[in-house]
Amino acid sequence: MPLEINSHRNEARGKQMPASDGSLGVAAIGYAFMGKAHSGAWRNVNAYFDGPEVRQQVLVGRNATAVSDAARRFGWRESAIDWRAVIARDDIDIVDIMTPGHLHAEIAIAALEAGKHVIVEKPIANTLEEAEAMAAAAAAAPAQHAIVNFNYRRVPAIALAKQMIEDGRIGAIRHVRASYLQDWLSDPSSPMSWRLRKAEAGSGALGDLGSHLTDLLLHLTGESVTEVSGGMQTFVTQRPSGESGGGSIGGSGVGGTLEDVTVDDAAWATTRLSGGGVAQIEVTRFARGRKNGLQLDIYGENGSLLFDLENLNELHFFDGGSPEGEQGFTRILVTEAIHPWVGAWWPDGHIIGWEHTFTHQFAQLITDIRDGIPSTPSFAEGLAVQRVLDAIERSSSVSGAPVHL
Amino acid sequence: MPLEINSHRNEARGKQMPASDGSLGVAAIGYAFMGKAHSGAWRNVNAYFDGPEVRQQVLVGRNATAVSDAARRFGWRESAIDWRAVIARDDIDIVDIMTPGHLHAEIAIAALEAGKHVIVEKPIANTLEEAEAMAAAAAAAPAQHAIVNFNYRRVPAIALAKQMIEDGRIGAIRHVRASYLQDWLSDPSSPMSWRLRKAEAGSGALGDLGSHLTDLLLHLTGESVTEVSGGMQTFVTQRPSGESGGGSIGGSGVGGTLEDVTVDDAAWATTRLSGGGVAQIEVTRFARGRKNGLQLDIYGENGSLLFDLENLNELHFFDGGSPEGEQGFTRILVTEAIHPWVGAWWPDGHIIGWEHTFTHQFAQLITDIRDGIPSTPSFAEGLAVQRVLDAIERSSSVSGAPVHL
Amino acid sequence: MPLEINSHRNEARGKQMPASDGSLGVAAIGYAFMGKAHSGAWRNVNAYFDGPEVRQQVLVGRNATAVSDAARRFGWRESAIDWRAVIARDDIDIVDIMTPGHLHAEIAIAALEAGKHVIVEKPIANTLEEAEAMAAAAAAAPAQHAIVNFNYRRVPAIALAKQMIEDGRIGAIRHVRASYLQDWLSDPSSPMSWRLRKAEAGSGALGDLGSHLTDLLLHLTGESVTEVSGGMQTFVTQRPSGESGGGSIGGSGVGGTLEDVTVDDAAWATTRLSGGGVAQIEVTRFARGRKNGLQLDIYGENGSLLFDLENLNELHFFDGGSPEGEQGFTRILVTEAIHPWVGAWWPDGHIIGWEHTFTHQFAQLITDIRDGIPSTPSFAEGLAVQRVLDAIERSSSVSGAPVHL
Amino acid sequence: MPLEINSHRNEARGKQMPASDGSLGVAAIGYAFMGKAHSGAWRNVNAYFDGPEVRQQVLVGRNATAVSDAARRFGWRESAIDWRAVIARDDIDIVDIMTPGHLHAEIAIAALEAGKHVIVEKPIANTLEEAEAMAAAAAAAPAQHAIVNFNYRRVPAIALAKQMIEDGRIGAIRHVRASYLQDWLSDPSSPMSWRLRKAEAGSGALGDLGSHLTDLLLHLTGESVTEVSGGMQTFVTQRPSGESGGGSIGGSGVGGTLEDVTVDDAAWATTRLSGGGVAQIEVTRFARGRKNGLQLDIYGENGSLLFDLENLNELHFFDGGSPEGEQGFTRILVTEAIHPWVGAWWPDGHIIGWEHTFTHQFAQLITDIRDGIPSTPSFAEGLAVQRVLDAIERSSSVSGAPVHL
Repeated sequence: MPLEINSHRNEARGKQMPASDGSLGVAAIGYAFMGKAHSGAWRNVNAYFDGPEVRQQVLVGRNATAVSDAARRFGWRESAIDWRAVIARDDIDIVDIMTPGHLHAEIAIAALEAGKHVIVEKPIANTLEEAEAMAAAAAAAPAQHAIVNFNYRRVPAIALAKQMIEDGRIGAIRHVRASYLQDWLSDPSSPMSWRLRKAEAGSGALGDLGSHLTDLLLHLTGESVTEVSGGMQTFVTQRPSGESGGGSIGGSGVGGTLEDVTVDDAAWATTRLSGGGVAQIEVTRFARGRKNGLQLDIYGENGSLLFDLENLNELHFFDGGSPEGEQGFTRILVTEAIHPWVGAWWPDGHIIGWEHTFTHQFAQLITDIRDGIPSTPSFAEGLAVQRVLDAIERSSSVSGAPVHL
Repeated sequence: MPLEINSHRNEARGKQMPASDGSLGVAAIGYAFMGKAHSGAWRNVNAYFDGPEVRQQVLVGRNATAVSDAARRFGWRESAIDWRAVIARDDIDIVDIMTPGHLHAEIAIAALEAGKHVIVEKPIANTLEEAEAMAAAAAAAPAQHAIVNFNYRRVPAIALAKQMIEDGRIGAIRHVRASYLQDWLSDPSSPMSWRLRKAEAGSGALGDLGSHLTDLLLHLTGESVTEVSGGMQTFVTQRPSGESGGGSIGGSGVGGTLEDVTVDDAAWATTRLSGGGVAQIEVTRFARGRKNGLQLDIYGENGSLLFDLENLNELHFFDGGSPEGEQGFTRILVTEAIHPWVGAWWPDGHIIGWEHTFTHQFAQLITDIRDGIPSTPSFAEGLAVQRVLDAIERSSSVSGAPVHL
Repeated sequence: MPLEINSHRNEARGKQMPASDGSLGVAAIGYAFMGKAHSGAWRNVNAYFDGPEVRQQVLVGRNATAVSDAARRFGWRESAIDWRAVIARDDIDIVDIMTPGHLHAEIAIAALEAGKHVIVEKPIANTLEEAEAMAAAAAAAPAQHAIVNFNYRRVPAIALAKQMIEDGRIGAIRHVRASYLQDWLSDPSSPMSWRLRKAEAGSGALGDLGSHLTDLLLHLTGESVTEVSGGMQTFVTQRPSGESGGGSIGGSGVGGTLEDVTVDDAAWATTRLSGGGVAQIEVTRFARGRKNGLQLDIYGENGSLLFDLENLNELHFFDGGSPEGEQGFTRILVTEAIHPWVGAWWPDGHIIGWEHTFTHQFAQLITDIRDGIPSTPSFAEGLAVQRVLDAIERSSSVSGAPVHL
Repeated sequence: MPLEINSHRNEARGKQMPASDGSLGVAAIGYAFMGKAHSGAWRNVNAYFDGPEVRQQVLVGRNATAVSDAARRFGWRESAIDWRAVIARDDIDIVDIMTPGHLHAEIAIAALEAGKHVIVEKPIANTLEEAEAMAAAAAAAPAQHAIVNFNYRRVPAIALAKQMIEDGRIGAIRHVRASYLQDWLSDPSSPMSWRLRKAEAGSGALGDLGSHLTDLLLHLTGESVTEVSGGMQTFVTQRPSGESGGGSIGGSGVGGTLEDVTVDDAAWATTRLSGGGVAQIEVTRFARGRKNGLQLDIYGENGSLLFDLENLNELHFFDGGSPEGEQGFTRILVTEAIHPWVGAWWPDGHIIGWEHTFTHQFAQLITDIRDGIPSTPSFAEGLAVQRVLDAIERSSSVSGAPVHL
């Protein structure tokens, strides 16, 4: 962890890193929303960050025509439909997996066994068993880099918060309030998609959104969760069958009339932290007016930090040590060269967007590969998140009675 | 409820009400923080609102000199130390009780039996049993008005939210996130006060702050709580003995070195609402940087409302029915004559402060008395709040296992 | 000035001041909007602030019945219609003048000659000549206190800004952007009132709103204006005759169809400050959505301050001296006992409203009277504001060509 | 203009446009800050937007090694040092000029004469004469596209504001308050750069920042400026000689001790609009705490719009037509597929950054080229901006006396 943060700091200050010895060939599996975002990061990382040269080698998907079109559009040299053949290729160094969650374990483990570095989209897997198998596979291949793409760690404001917490700027953590609110299911007539089927998505808001919150909670506090009391709810239990999220391997869109929603629309938990604090987590797809609203409030003994993804270039800091009468939350515009990754982009004050987090993550990964530094968020960290999500689900099944970890 | 809201609306639009037939004599018991606030409201209510003439007759306290000084300063005609004698007087119509919670029941029931109208500060009492006895006493005196001073109902922005919810502007309620955050105990060396002793205060953040949130939750949604999963925590279990909150009957400030804190520093709960929604409640005195931060986020099927006591003149409204592409949270500056109570004060755009809520509450009460309209928040409503708080405490004692109401 | 700030600081910290030797009898002239606000401050000042006892003796107006009703409602012992008789009374110590501006000079000078302390509402007068006569009368009566009620100086956040600027927290001032935006004339069918007639109001937005901005500019910077380039505009030149602002001596509301608007709807100026900075002033009654929006941005060499009257309990401070990477605007919630005047009201974090500024001003005045300390904003300061407004008007008459002061 | 907006709308809604017949070869001149930003847009435009295929053909600079490195990093196929040779090449269709302003005219006119489409960075030129020559050259080549890269027109929130104004959502414009505030010169010891030398930069804050504001003013209102009263100021008149902004053709960084600053640090103007409104413009490099703070407040007869570049994904809209009691500024998060260009990027609610505006501009240009639609901002529009800036400079030279256009 310290290494990681240090290297951010170095990059932020523009230190030149040693030249790369060789390029890295990437194969990406999936070309929908996440495929587009990952492709962009691979296409741009060398323009902004030092590190090994990246070759966007192969884009993999189920539909040959569609994946070929996507490959051309997104800058990939080739496309393919058989991921097994691709991961066997010598010119592939990194396998970037963006399929629905139920396929993560199979592909990731195969890629690790094929000697590749692996990225999987979050959450690491749909089940705890799969996550455990993946973490074991990664542990068995220590020279390879295996990460879960919890990209919000790579928001400069979040990385700054991490630094400040590590530097003791807010002291012992008393309260965390974390919420990730969306509203795309508020309308009961919104159609089904693979994200609403347990078989493919594993869970609903809990896995999709709660995994982000849980990772941020563990990452930022540096603590573990010792006890969970949680709940889950499905407000709309049947929806019109409609098109799938599309484009990703494993997605499906069967026609029909009404289909059962088999995942949660909302989930929440109170978690006890190993340091004695309490963290509240809440996720939902029914918060009208919130499109992609991730909010984090962290209250420490000596100070506090607030973050809101709708203004991801900002971090609000209350410094209990500032002069009496002048205290308050400082809106830090995290857009200065001194801030993590920011110096690689534009002059002070120019805001960046959501997808830059992917570029930061991949920049981190390729320099870690070059330098032989363990990469994060590791599969072990992805598993730790999964254990908390699993505990929430188990607590929910007993109406909120506590589950210990 | 509809009557209440209608009368707000009338006042807000400045309709003249019939002249009062007789003045109302008030006795107030307590002259610390709350005594100062209530006194101000009694002193000013006739200047801004139509209704019976108010006589600030007697201020009651334990210390004759101190209460006499306070009475002169705060505009009371007399002072007294024996509340029993005062509530027996013929020239007293309203008894306004601001003692610590353990004295509420005794005085309120005595005042009701003496034929007086009664106000008690929130929460209604320290124990469920006391609250039940008080509600029974109020029910036995239907011609008298008995209210619990949940003053935040009388914030214009909250009253506007109530109107909008009743008018269906946000539809069925899915999520409520309510927090009341303070930080005056963040420092472990902050001294003891009566508020930290269970015998006097009943509970800590839960009763003091959680009662407000619970009342707002029940009031605004118009729903009941059917199930609770909650927790409580005391971060700092001993504190230096120091001065009490002072001035109120029943307060005490014993000297000494370290004293056990016997109430909670923080409390939280997930509550299920009768309408199918979920409400999260969180209160604490350890949220560094929050002096008096009450935040309410209410997400409905068609719209949402946000409120923050730090900007109590504002209500933020997301209208799912507004044109596509123009949707967002509208910051309504609730400072126009059309808004509840605002027309009684200043021209549009001039903000009011925290204590105005007391004036609104008392204006409401005296016109209700004149017009024979039942007053709110009633003792029955105060009891309903207490039942939820009690459920949270019981759930907390079993580590968050659910308690049904 | 330092004395004034020091005494605020004392009050803020709750120091007991010496007991008053005698009460002060007040006569107020005017009972409309401002009369209501001033009455409230007189009624409440002794409850919150130490200082001489205030007697609300006489309220003066043109209409005997109306002023009698107002007097009863607002807490005055008597009412009267002849201000000349009132200012001759021995039991009157302070004459508080809230008439339209064209009557300020006559009454204020008469009151000073009668040996009274005088308050006039802002701006000091409608013409420079009247302002000069008033300042001369005040100078000729040095033992009497004569102030112009620029009440925004008494917003705690503004007083804090003043302290911080004096303490060098932002360094040399480079830029001031001051605007005071309202929208009550946006609708071309809004009716005439005395505020739109030059004979009564002197000017429009310039005098009404621009006087506040100019006073704040001079007060906060401690500098003078050396050069002005300005403009004025009347967007709607005729309006339906309608009711007057009512209630004040000198107001009038003649019926009819269309009447010429003889004052400005909007005004603006670039002013050069004696310290080398530049200040932009803009006022209007046509800024749709701004009810009472006064915004001040002050940029100094080492820091900056932002204020917005819509959130008058806040001051935003950029501290160029805070650690790199943590800089930003700090939202200081100016609601702590350490802040000017705040300790007199409620515990930390409880916001106050617009009218509290009047109470602060009168608290300041009565303790100044008791202590023999010159009061501010003095008539000389009111005259200085008037000179700037006059320069703006002259520059406007030559299309913005510069006018030197 | 309507065409342009329509095509944004089409893109925003994801309509497929006809396939491109041929690719477009681009040559870019300059590889510093702007070169990096433009390169990124060229590299990414085909991944997100339909339109002709773009070839990043040649990057041109003065230093062969540096430009070669930059070309490789930024995705260009070749580099070169002789712009004249490059613009003569047949495989170049678009010449993208990012040199300091004094070189714009020569290169742009030569490129137009060579039959190329041309982009110049803003402002169009350093002098009015050069701008006139450039506009004449563009007029003489009507089949070629020649644009000035006022990229802020391509912020989705700004384009939405433009649509709303055109659709009459705010009515006749009364007031515009436009400011562009930076602070990189606040420190008197900040070194010289080419931006502070009149010979290279033309002007200081006025041209650099004021050109953006003026373009937005003209573009958004659709009106012209009829009269200007303005001023300029240099707060720090000498600075240590230091490194230049570097990397661009024409930049220079001579060593030495102190050098005269020959441009303005700040500038401002009051402008009269052809529609009867008034616009205030203010730009500075001395607003401590503002890194890149462009704020626009537009007040119309029926509504208002607010924009702040620090939160460029937001537009605040006051709708005078919304229900009474519910009015206020709506914070529109301009991150939905329905908003201009947004649908090309990510799902609703994912914010974009500053550099995306370049991608939008180039996407617009290449589809205009394909479709034969005149492109904007045209050289004629760039010239119109320059006329206003020139008028401000002339007014400043006579201390703010008005200049008519």
